[in-house]
Amino acid sequence: MRNDSLLVTDLYQLTMVQSYLEHGLTRIASFELFVRKMPEHRNFLMFSGLEPLLEYLEQLHLDEAELDWLRKSGRFSDELLDYLDGLSFDGHVDAMREGTVFFPDEPVVRITAPLPLAQLIETRLINLLHFQTLIASKAARVRLAAGDRQLVDFGLRRSHGAEAGLLAARASYLAGFDATSNVQAGFAYGIPIVGTMAHSYILAHGCESEAFVHYAHSHPKGVVLLIDTYDTEAAARKLVKLAPRLASEGIRIQAVRLDSGDLGAHARKVRDILDRGGLHEVRIFASGNLDECRVQSLLDQGAPIDGFGVGTRMNTSSDAPYLDCAYKLQEYDGQPRRKLSEHKATWPGRKQVYRQYRDGFIDRDIITTVDDADCSGEPLLQPVMRHGRRLHEPQDLKAARMHARQQLQALPPGLLRPDAPKTERPVVEVSKALRELARAVDRDIRLRMAS
Amino acid sequence: MRNDSLLVTDLYQLTMVQSYLEHGLTRIASFELFVRKMPEHRNFLMFSGLEPLLEYLEQLHLDEAELDWLRKSGRFSDELLDYLDGLSFDGHVDAMREGTVFFPDEPVVRITAPLPLAQLIETRLINLLHFQTLIASKAARVRLAAGDRQLVDFGLRRSHGAEAGLLAARASYLAGFDATSNVQAGFAYGIPIVGTMAHSYILAHGCESEAFVHYAHSHPKGVVLLIDTYDTEAAARKLVKLAPRLASEGIRIQAVRLDSGDLGAHARKVRDILDRGGLHEVRIFASGNLDECRVQSLLDQGAPIDGFGVGTRMNTSSDAPYLDCAYKLQEYDGQPRRKLSEHKATWPGRKQVYRQYRDGFIDRDIITTVDDADCSGEPLLQPVMRHGRRLHEPQDLKAARMHARQQLQALPPGLLRPDAPKTERPVVEVSKALRELARAVDRDIRLRMAS
Repeated sequence: MRNDSLLVTDLYQLTMVQSYLEHGLTRIASFELFVRKMPEHRNFLMFSGLEPLLEYLEQLHLDEAELDWLRKSGRFSDELLDYLDGLSFDGHVDAMREGTVFFPDEPVVRITAPLPLAQLIETRLINLLHFQTLIASKAARVRLAAGDRQLVDFGLRRSHGAEAGLLAARASYLAGFDATSNVQAGFAYGIPIVGTMAHSYILAHGCESEAFVHYAHSHPKGVVLLIDTYDTEAAARKLVKLAPRLASEGIRIQAVRLDSGDLGAHARKVRDILDRGGLHEVRIFASGNLDECRVQSLLDQGAPIDGFGVGTRMNTSSDAPYLDCAYKLQEYDGQPRRKLSEHKATWPGRKQVYRQYRDGFIDRDIITTVDDADCSGEPLLQPVMRHGRRLHEPQDLKAARMHARQQLQALPPGLLRPDAPKTERPVVEVSKALRELARAVDRDIRLRMAS
Repeated sequence: MRNDSLLVTDLYQLTMVQSYLEHGLTRIASFELFVRKMPEHRNFLMFSGLEPLLEYLEQLHLDEAELDWLRKSGRFSDELLDYLDGLSFDGHVDAMREGTVFFPDEPVVRITAPLPLAQLIETRLINLLHFQTLIASKAARVRLAAGDRQLVDFGLRRSHGAEAGLLAARASYLAGFDATSNVQAGFAYGIPIVGTMAHSYILAHGCESEAFVHYAHSHPKGVVLLIDTYDTEAAARKLVKLAPRLASEGIRIQAVRLDSGDLGAHARKVRDILDRGGLHEVRIFASGNLDECRVQSLLDQGAPIDGFGVGTRMNTSSDAPYLDCAYKLQEYDGQPRRKLSEHKATWPGRKQVYRQYRDGFIDRDIITTVDDADCSGEPLLQPVMRHGRRLHEPQDLKAARMHARQQLQALPPGLLRPDAPKTERPVVEVSKALRELARAVDRDIRLRMAS
């Protein structure tokens, strides 16, 4: 199945578009994507997924088999089927840069296109941006906790499908991870890939020392040995014995990996055994149920760990596996729109977010209307596509990663630890112009409801 | 990117396989997949994903571009590249039937194949089975809570990527959902698809009544109207006014959808308004942040809701977004193997699970060795593939769904509510034969470690 198929959508997009076409609701609409509410253990979010979204929009189409299937279902009008057959995305996209830190209620993407088209892309747009933003936001916290230690994404196997593994590798690399175990992420995005051995490698050999030697001979330039299959410290002592023999063959042990038990305690004992054995340069890499809180806690304890493999908890954002986000119609045919549903009311109209800094740190964001001349600061939403064409070359992932790094450096210092209190967040203001617009729209809704 | 690419793997599978080939570790290995520990709010798990796994194994290959990329990386031996170039899956698969209820430590799948091959497929095998089992286990709880009310998967947009949305639609349908909003799931698996309108449809019209009438004219056979955009009860009263006019055109309102606020309170008020307006046959469908606990709570309160759309919390299994599962080498070249890592020790050897019933309910599972003649009951693991060939026609999804339904009917009554205490779980025993085997393997490991 094609991940980028137009069939990756909710049926209601098709039923609505059929009705829009039938009743002539085909004028220009603006939809914006935003997060309503921050998950409990997040102080900031990091926008990710724009480049994959643009690629999706550029190739938007149904293939013959998909179109045939829709036709044969008998549930759609010829008008809709013809529309889908000839479809391409010719709308506008305005967006934050990937890697930008943002906060609730701030639009991160605006789509401006004829209503049926802007509607039709909703599901996949959310599907792409929600997940990658979720993962980048989690991975950024791990990066902040780990300082400059090596961070590797190990999450593919328990990611929610293959595409989740691929996009999580991308989003975590964007947010500051150094590498991934996911080979396809190397193929698709050029992300550095790393990996050495699993417990099965040791078990297949029966003799642990033989397994170590075999591995060293097969991969003399990347000798990272997993030492917790039977007894971690005993394995470290075996390495001290093996090291001279390997050294005589020109092979250096680069690192050991710990994957179970009390990682801090094992790291200290193993460091001691290695150091006493003269293996000062052998690094210790840890994995197993890690997330930003455990990484922070291990480093707070002074555990001598040089790198971390972070898997499932990052790739599923396990403490907050979804964001409360929405893609809402904000303007139709020049008229601002607003939904009033309880606890789900939205700010109407096309919006801009201005960011103000103090001493190099993010100080204040102002959400306002696109044409508000009274607000100042760095405008976070920028045009990226007009009439279906990109305004710039595809963004290089490394450049986006550098931007994400600068964004984390601009975070107020009170936000840097995973356990930072929520009170440390920068101020996010809604401008006077936007509040007035919302009141005007509400008055208009009440008038129409009363009539 | 191909979801079923062999590149959807961890790099260490390739580095290990290269070393296995180099050192002649190519004899027959058996790996088993099992869940180590139940998530906190689960009393049982439901196996799902076997058919997609078999499809993956049947097509296992690298395409030219992928192979080229591996070759050009310069990090792999010619021996490995030749091996990958000519690869196909010619191993054995034994597995539980999809939809089978199971418990921790029970193997759900066993792969028996030459070590490099059984190793190579690990990542995608876990990726496919872990996620689908996660979702089927969650969806089964929702089904139990909802009784025979309509259940629709609404989760695609906040699923973790497109494949997650597709596989979650499949797993939830298997576990007892009636339909999905995901159009691709209809295309790929023939799952019934449903969907009507979003708030944007109402907002684009400006006038809510006009939106309702337009929708009814466009889809006269499926009039389900979203009534919470501005004021839920006011919208219900509008429908009472509109209904006679629509009826005169031969159009019947089938249902209303509530998507915000206190769903139970709104449902009661709306039911009352509809009934007093003579619209007894109009059903009430609810959605918005639902999961099995909220469904159970709404029904416990007697909320007059006829169907539920369950989205994000089911498709991300949000209270438990991953399972602690593992695919472990249990036997190599006829010798049982076992890992001893702290808190991660496994039961060695190839295993079978026997299920015993009492009064039609699952009473006791016994995990034992494959050749234990002393155990009796229904053997849950069955051969499904030999030498890479299926033993049966592909399993029909509807048949698997029927099996899942029977499994839920065989659950002890104490497990049926989402808040059932853990003490209600059936007994899972480890047989005497398996305990003895584990002791023998441990003795062997200690002997070899001491040497």
